[in-house]
Amino acid sequence: MLGAIEAGGTKFVLAVSDNNLENIERISIPTTLPQETFAKVFDFFDKYELEAIGIGSFGPIDINKKSATYGYITSTPKPGWKNTDFLGKMKERYNIPISWTTDVNAAAYGELKKGSATDEKSCLYLTVGTGVGGGAVINEKPLEGYSHPEMGHILVKPHPKDSFSGTCPYHKNCLEGLASGPAIEKRYNKKAETLTDTDEVWQIEAYYLAQALMTYTLTLGPEKIILGGGVMHQKQLFPLIREQYRELMNGYVETPDLEEYIVPPKLSDNAGLTGCLLLAKEEL
Amino acid sequence: MLGAIEAGGTKFVLAVSDNNLENIERISIPTTLPQETFAKVFDFFDKYELEAIGIGSFGPIDINKKSATYGYITSTPKPGWKNTDFLGKMKERYNIPISWTTDVNAAAYGELKKGSATDEKSCLYLTVGTGVGGGAVINEKPLEGYSHPEMGHILVKPHPKDSFSGTCPYHKNCLEGLASGPAIEKRYNKKAETLTDTDEVWQIEAYYLAQALMTYTLTLGPEKIILGGGVMHQKQLFPLIREQYRELMNGYVETPDLEEYIVPPKLSDNAGLTGCLLLAKEEL
Ligand SMILES: Nc1ncnc2c1ncn2[C@@H]1O[C@H](COP(=O)(O)OP(=O)(O)O)[C@@H](O)[C@H]1O
Ligand SMILES: Nc1ncnc2c1ncn2[C@@H]1O[C@H](COP(=O)(O)OP(=O)(O)O)[C@@H](O)[C@H]1O
Ligand SMILES: [Zn+2]
Ligand SMILES: [Zn+2]
Repeated sequence: MLGAIEAGGTKFVLAVSDNNLENIERISIPTTLPQETFAKVFDFFDKYELEAIGIGSFGPIDINKKSATYGYITSTPKPGWKNTDFLGKMKERYNIPISWTTDVNAAAYGELKKGSATDEKSCLYLTVGTGVGGGAVINEKPLEGYSHPEMGHILVKPHPKDSFSGTCPYHKNCLEGLASGPAIEKRYNKKAETLTDTDEVWQIEAYYLAQALMTYTLTLGPEKIILGGGVMHQKQLFPLIREQYRELMNGYVETPDLEEYIVPPKLSDNAGLTGCLLLAKEEL
Repeated sequence: MLGAIEAGGTKFVLAVSDNNLENIERISIPTTLPQETFAKVFDFFDKYELEAIGIGSFGPIDINKKSATYGYITSTPKPGWKNTDFLGKMKERYNIPISWTTDVNAAAYGELKKGSATDEKSCLYLTVGTGVGGGAVINEKPLEGYSHPEMGHILVKPHPKDSFSGTCPYHKNCLEGLASGPAIEKRYNKKAETLTDTDEVWQIEAYYLAQALMTYTLTLGPEKIILGGGVMHQKQLFPLIREQYRELMNGYVETPDLEEYIVPPKLSDNAGLTGCLLLAKEEL
């Protein structure tokens, strides 16, 4: 049996499946303080004879095996969670193999193995929601270097019509600072989901996302780019992003047909959890 | 015995070594038209009983195994070389395993195994010369997705003091368009190597390179960034780049000490060829 935790800042989704990934039980618990949250995690998993667990966590997290704080959630602003030894707590309770990566790496892995990138060896998963975060799978392995990617914080060029200064506390007008849901809300003083009919909003949004995707293609060359998260529920963004991407790239690098290349997640909300289960299975 | 080709737009460097990478013979030939150049390559390698060959080529090249033109140099402006079946010609002549990647991926691989990144599993190699090109090794394998990285063409923000419009025929003011040797030369009407004492030149250059390095770290998270190529002979660039990188990143992502993180190639001009030999050896 396999366990999975998709650990988000708002909620933890926990699942147990058999070794073929068939669902056995699944629950969602709010992310409160660590002690309380872990107590619920233990309650849930204690009922089963697990062989391995896969964790995809919100971050930043320490994925550097050489580091003294490997397995920690590190500098998060989320109250109580800064410097939490997530993996350590789990290992202490369950003496089984546990895989540890970011929520978005897990989602990318899920999409590669069971979602919209199943014929590929690499893909990139970008979530555009409360934050902007990216994960990737390269050669069928989650991308992890000295630290995990923080693709949401790359710099982009301001749109000529956009004078908004950005919301990122670290970089002001990085991608997340200009294109996250809260950035849209702050720029227009309205929630992003209420702006569906204002074309300019999505033109500007697409301009930033297209720049970022161009950078990811030039740097990583993924075989598929998958865009998820709340803001991407605005489906009209997809053609706008593809159009601006085509213009910016100007034919420089070959990609598959853009309709096939820049796509929504096939597993929708299950990408992360599926990835966690698959990564658990890899540990067997 | 192992063969290696570091195929550049100006010259091909050819080498034969024993299986411990001890040099047996090495020559450099000018890159003229393909037929003439390959005749010289064959003359050189025909003398030996090779077991495998590693090629690191100038590009763009097709590294997509599913593609009909896998192994080709594709859209290069270099006269005569467009759509050249490089790997095909080699395979026709030598019925042995041949590895095929970009010059900069080979250099990154050489630096990872024998150069300044020997304790790591990933690194990025950026050359700043006639063009700006990047390669990377991730999980000890050259980075290759749908196509190879073209890191030199990412977009950067113009420096406030820089009104130069850029030289890239595709994107005007991408990194290569603003920071390559010819871009410096065109901006100041003087060869880059003659501008050593003009501080502003290197401040601006460092500003662009620091932005690019920040993007690479956020996207790929390499454990080491190695900067080579003619322009990087200006050693005063290293501290300037580190300083601006630190400022831009603003503590967001952990990296090793920047003196250790952003470094020149330890193998200097041998990085590429060493990488090719190592990749040939991997084929055995
Ligand atoms: N249908 C929608 N259209 C546009 N924006 C949306 C939509 N749904 C949610 N958002 C925005 O996305 C953000 C929430 O992102 P979401 O991916 O749902 O959660 P989280 O990132 O916290 O996991 C909010 O800023 C919200 O305004
Ligand atoms: N010492 C130097 N300082 C600054 N620029 C240099 C120096 N040496 C070469 N360059 C510049 O680098 C470019 C050549 O790059 P190089 O890496 O030597 O060759 P290539 O990129 O063609 O393989 C030229 O534009 C040249 O002006
Ligand atoms: Zn930021
Ligand atoms: Zn360019």
